[in-house]
Amino acid sequence: MTLRQDQDDVAVVRADGRAVDELRPITIERGWSANAEGSALISFGGTKVLCTASFTNGVPRWLTGKGKGWVTAEYAMLPRATNSRNDRESVKGRVGGRTHEISRLIGRALRAVVDTKALGENTIVIDCDVLQADGGTRTAAITGAYVALADAIEWGRGKKFIAQRSQVLVDSVAAVSVGIIEGEPMLDLAYVEDVRAETDMNVVVTGRGLFVEVQGTAEGAPFDKRELDALLELGVAGCASLRDHQVAALDAGAES
Amino acid sequence: MTLRQDQDDVAVVRADGRAVDELRPITIERGWSANAEGSALISFGGTKVLCTASFTNGVPRWLTGKGKGWVTAEYAMLPRATNSRNDRESVKGRVGGRTHEISRLIGRALRAVVDTKALGENTIVIDCDVLQADGGTRTAAITGAYVALADAIEWGRGKKFIAQRSQVLVDSVAAVSVGIIEGEPMLDLAYVEDVRAETDMNVVVTGRGLFVEVQGTAEGAPFDKRELDALLELGVAGCASLRDHQVAALDAGAES
Amino acid sequence: MTLRQDQDDVAVVRADGRAVDELRPITIERGWSANAEGSALISFGGTKVLCTASFTNGVPRWLTGKGKGWVTAEYAMLPRATNSRNDRESVKGRVGGRTHEISRLIGRALRAVVDTKALGENTIVIDCDVLQADGGTRTAAITGAYVALADAIEWGRGKKFIAQRSQVLVDSVAAVSVGIIEGEPMLDLAYVEDVRAETDMNVVVTGRGLFVEVQGTAEGAPFDKRELDALLELGVAGCASLRDHQVAALDAGAES
Amino acid sequence: MTLRQDQDDVAVVRADGRAVDELRPITIERGWSANAEGSALISFGGTKVLCTASFTNGVPRWLTGKGKGWVTAEYAMLPRATNSRNDRESVKGRVGGRTHEISRLIGRALRAVVDTKALGENTIVIDCDVLQADGGTRTAAITGAYVALADAIEWGRGKKFIAQRSQVLVDSVAAVSVGIIEGEPMLDLAYVEDVRAETDMNVVVTGRGLFVEVQGTAEGAPFDKRELDALLELGVAGCASLRDHQVAALDAGAES
Amino acid sequence: MTLRQDQDDVAVVRADGRAVDELRPITIERGWSANAEGSALISFGGTKVLCTASFTNGVPRWLTGKGKGWVTAEYAMLPRATNSRNDRESVKGRVGGRTHEISRLIGRALRAVVDTKALGENTIVIDCDVLQADGGTRTAAITGAYVALADAIEWGRGKKFIAQRSQVLVDSVAAVSVGIIEGEPMLDLAYVEDVRAETDMNVVVTGRGLFVEVQGTAEGAPFDKRELDALLELGVAGCASLRDHQVAALDAGAES
Amino acid sequence: MTLRQDQDDVAVVRADGRAVDELRPITIERGWSANAEGSALISFGGTKVLCTASFTNGVPRWLTGKGKGWVTAEYAMLPRATNSRNDRESVKGRVGGRTHEISRLIGRALRAVVDTKALGENTIVIDCDVLQADGGTRTAAITGAYVALADAIEWGRGKKFIAQRSQVLVDSVAAVSVGIIEGEPMLDLAYVEDVRAETDMNVVVTGRGLFVEVQGTAEGAPFDKRELDALLELGVAGCASLRDHQVAALDAGAES
Repeated sequence: MTLRQDQDDVAVVRADGRAVDELRPITIERGWSANAEGSALISFGGTKVLCTASFTNGVPRWLTGKGKGWVTAEYAMLPRATNSRNDRESVKGRVGGRTHEISRLIGRALRAVVDTKALGENTIVIDCDVLQADGGTRTAAITGAYVALADAIEWGRGKKFIAQRSQVLVDSVAAVSVGIIEGEPMLDLAYVEDVRAETDMNVVVTGRGLFVEVQGTAEGAPFDKRELDALLELGVAGCASLRDHQVAALDAGAES
Repeated sequence: MTLRQDQDDVAVVRADGRAVDELRPITIERGWSANAEGSALISFGGTKVLCTASFTNGVPRWLTGKGKGWVTAEYAMLPRATNSRNDRESVKGRVGGRTHEISRLIGRALRAVVDTKALGENTIVIDCDVLQADGGTRTAAITGAYVALADAIEWGRGKKFIAQRSQVLVDSVAAVSVGIIEGEPMLDLAYVEDVRAETDMNVVVTGRGLFVEVQGTAEGAPFDKRELDALLELGVAGCASLRDHQVAALDAGAES
Repeated sequence: MTLRQDQDDVAVVRADGRAVDELRPITIERGWSANAEGSALISFGGTKVLCTASFTNGVPRWLTGKGKGWVTAEYAMLPRATNSRNDRESVKGRVGGRTHEISRLIGRALRAVVDTKALGENTIVIDCDVLQADGGTRTAAITGAYVALADAIEWGRGKKFIAQRSQVLVDSVAAVSVGIIEGEPMLDLAYVEDVRAETDMNVVVTGRGLFVEVQGTAEGAPFDKRELDALLELGVAGCASLRDHQVAALDAGAES
Repeated sequence: MTLRQDQDDVAVVRADGRAVDELRPITIERGWSANAEGSALISFGGTKVLCTASFTNGVPRWLTGKGKGWVTAEYAMLPRATNSRNDRESVKGRVGGRTHEISRLIGRALRAVVDTKALGENTIVIDCDVLQADGGTRTAAITGAYVALADAIEWGRGKKFIAQRSQVLVDSVAAVSVGIIEGEPMLDLAYVEDVRAETDMNVVVTGRGLFVEVQGTAEGAPFDKRELDALLELGVAGCASLRDHQVAALDAGAES
Repeated sequence: MTLRQDQDDVAVVRADGRAVDELRPITIERGWSANAEGSALISFGGTKVLCTASFTNGVPRWLTGKGKGWVTAEYAMLPRATNSRNDRESVKGRVGGRTHEISRLIGRALRAVVDTKALGENTIVIDCDVLQADGGTRTAAITGAYVALADAIEWGRGKKFIAQRSQVLVDSVAAVSVGIIEGEPMLDLAYVEDVRAETDMNVVVTGRGLFVEVQGTAEGAPFDKRELDALLELGVAGCASLRDHQVAALDAGAES
Repeated sequence: MTLRQDQDDVAVVRADGRAVDELRPITIERGWSANAEGSALISFGGTKVLCTASFTNGVPRWLTGKGKGWVTAEYAMLPRATNSRNDRESVKGRVGGRTHEISRLIGRALRAVVDTKALGENTIVIDCDVLQADGGTRTAAITGAYVALADAIEWGRGKKFIAQRSQVLVDSVAAVSVGIIEGEPMLDLAYVEDVRAETDMNVVVTGRGLFVEVQGTAEGAPFDKRELDALLELGVAGCASLRDHQVAALDAGAES
């Protein structure tokens, strides 16, 4: 595979008119759920993910008495989030490999910015349910989950489960997909782009610009170091922009 | 149990200020999902249910060649739809009894107004996913599912899977909960009312005012015929009002 | 649907020669099981259900220390109880929706006549296993389960797990199916009648004649209030007759 | 372990008064189930097993076109068949090892006396459900299953699914447990004996006196050849007696 | 079936050139696993089973405080141990009947030679994983499991979990398959022989020559007492030879 | 996190004496399994993985008639492969998230070097069973699976299922883990190193040196681009060395 040589000269236009390094329209409806301690309905274009954070005072038995908290995540998709209906995993009687893998990824991404000692013996479970899918569901989930997590932590502080001055979040975290399509590196792939990508990568980046996770896969032909570098650069820039959306949402006043 | 004697004289006021025979605020966002052939995000007060209808040309093998279609439904709740988080049924590896029971109820309710011969050999699966729960989730699901179903049928007609003049829907259908609290029959119970009800009933009624399903349960003391009649009357009136909301939503122009 | 106008004039005769308001032959073999604390093999015509009550001193963890007991039920069918063999739910690896729904119904029906405080911290599990099915299995199960429950309570009293004068059963409970076939309301449907019924209803009624549960479903066309009333009247009368059978069985001397 | 030396001199009396080589009272209610093609409710003392045979014209896909039939069996126990209640395998979501093992044993025992070519492309499934357990449930199941099987074969012959003169059953089959208790070999152990047995053996023997299956297990100390021989002798004699009960039941006239 | 009369006169030669009473080449690689407390990779010809013993100080809850230990076993087969690939039981979501049955057999065989009081409150789990299958996998598993068990017990003694002089193993145990092929009793059947055997038997015998388990099954025609005796004799001799291999392996110096 | 500045000056020595850029001893026993069409027992130090390839003529139904083959993989661990015993996934009744994730990774890695059109309508299933685990099990699995795959393809060619000149493998593939420990990038982490790593990365690289998969995770603190580059460089070099081991194994003559 060879990167396009002319990328500085010609503006490649995507199906939805975006530039190659442009995110889809991002919206974050913070506090969407009246019941959860933190929540956000996030959309990356047509991808809509409801992220709720459930705060429990106390930790699972295996962690009891260690003075540390626990953050975990579960990802799932409604059966008709996608273009054709998928059977429910509850009906099939088991969680599929892809679901498990993404749940684990989201959990790791969040724990990377949490100081579990500062959290104290509290548990936060983040549920990311994809209501509508159009590519990048796991990256939208991570980005929205951070907002829900931040609000749940503040809820816990308000209830005195977390010490007033304790800094639980050591950084923020966001994620975005990048990929190479017909030799062109592109940011934030929609579903129609994702299925055409030769190389597909998800990058999880902190607010300070450090990597938490880099997962690149050759869907078509294997890729070389130059392509990898081009994708990482796009991904880091995309996450910086997502961080700004997170900050704006969290600054918009107390959760209603 | 004795019905309150003074119900004509004193206006009983409920926690949210409603009259005993008043529905919560009802909203129906038709066409909420871009991917499904029919959809509605319905709310009965704090209860929000996303109903999607998936249309497939063809029927399950056991029905093939009989010239009839099939309509079925699945109900589920997001883990944090409720006040405290419930484990996912996909993670537990099986669908609970309550979930099964409600899925079956919704399916029966919809089939009661569908002429499966007129539908032809097509299958419509309705998914009702509770995004937020505040009592009456199964009745909101039935009421919203009807709207999604109606749109999916029109989609199938547009695609010529259903004959142009064939009348698939022989009536409309809606549902509401009613219950007796401290001797007072009340319409459309919110969660705080539901847990206090001595008798709890769900009625499923067609647009013409006929019963499809009547499910009354004594949660506290058994009930007598007079109480039953009072509840049925409230329920029929509530369903008539819900029918008007359905009509308004479906009249509001083509699904966007 | 219209109720037959001539029902007072013409005696409708059913397949087995019964009158429309007549139960099938009812037998209750109390104490059928040597191992259980209470048991009854009940038959409604060709429907035979073995009901056993298992008494345990103590309650599930979630109920401990509240001074209340627990009564629950499980319903199941032998694979060849029916006309053609069904796969075992144990082999399929999960309990079907219908099974769950009926188990829950039986449990609710029994709890409606039990004073759990008077029961004390004891648990009674009722198993209702259908050995042969010919319609009305859930109503036979409830009716037989009451007898098994009553004996298990006396067993617990004999063992001093229940206080001597404590009145655990506040009433008796029985159940029967009713339905409308070709416009004619009928009592206690056999299988061949059940599949033809336009409307199908199960009523659970206490010995004093109060409703515990009313579950009516339009299998064919929706039904109106007059039909509903006719069915309820038949059901209440049928349950009164079943109560007499229960009393006779329980009066027949100590469980052998 | 040493066999008692005095067994010819002293009559050992068992808890229920039986001689060491005496079966418990055996009853076989042939045709107990109105729905199955063959059935028998068999009792070995307090052990009661309902055996039903379900006849299907045709064979599983893997056997199609080979001109041979298939006989298989499933064994299960009602939750309160035993002295204390066991959780249902359907609720646990899986069939236990013991259940599987016994189902396989019953199937093998029956197939040993069936000429599957003579059976033709037909399937017979035998269900053995233990209604009450007092030791020896698997041996009662095999013995009763043979009777149900024989009737199902005749049913198939009556329906012309099996050729008129074809000899499907090449022999009969019965089974009994034997064991050594305090050095004394005994026939047909009741539950209280079974738990005390040092060595426990199940023998499956044809009507002609040949072995189909011999399963001996040292529950306490290992056993020697002389003990093994003593047990086999008792078992063969017990099966001969059971064969007579089978013959009597099958001679008692056509299944009603 | 008739035993061949000429067996003393003519040397029957098997596919692999063995005599009828000859074992396949036996190898025992003791201490194959660096992680387990005891282990052996055993081969009976082409059958290779990895047996590991996992020692845990403490017992399952139901055994706590009784001063006794627990020994249990699990048997499994790699998907491509056999000639054609089998689906994994983990992927199918349940353990098959054959697997359960063999796991139970291995556990019983080992417990027959263990003094659980001398073991003290310790648990040993033996895993027998078939890496390559060519008949007799369960008998190889038992024979290898004994070696792994013996080493795990010594490990526990070294760690002072078991008293220095306590004699945990009261005997050794080995197992072998025997069968009748074309009227000829044969020892240690390879897969090609196993599928042809008319009668198939597994015998589990202690080092002192006593029976722990005898499981004979007529795969073809039923068998008589003379055939049974011939098989038992072969099996006892085969187990004596396997015992010598076990002793040699255990004498070969401390586990590396 | 900061990379050690002194890495050129001081030779960092690891627990087992290796240099930071040195693989553990690698062995590949090609053709270990007599039953599989291709197999390799690979070891990376104490990590031992048995890889078998099962060749089937034909493809899954969803791929039929497209002229393309299918390669897939399953990964699993024996319960006592690790230092303490894990419950079997078959007993737990479901495959864990980690297992699923690794199975998917291995399958993707192999498919990246297979021309499925050249493979024709054939299916190859690779089973990677970890017999002993000491870190890097997924990378050893990929590296060994390639050898088993290559042999299975040659087997298929020998059987004429694959065209004589068709080039099924377009490249080779190997994998290795890399990580940063106390600021030092290291190759091929053993278990004791893996648990200490701040950043952990698996790289899958083709024989020509192109990336198939890059999966880097911050286990401790997030990492920067310089660290990422250092890890990638080590990984590419390690995979080149593994490629030489693969070539040597495959050159060693026909599978025995």
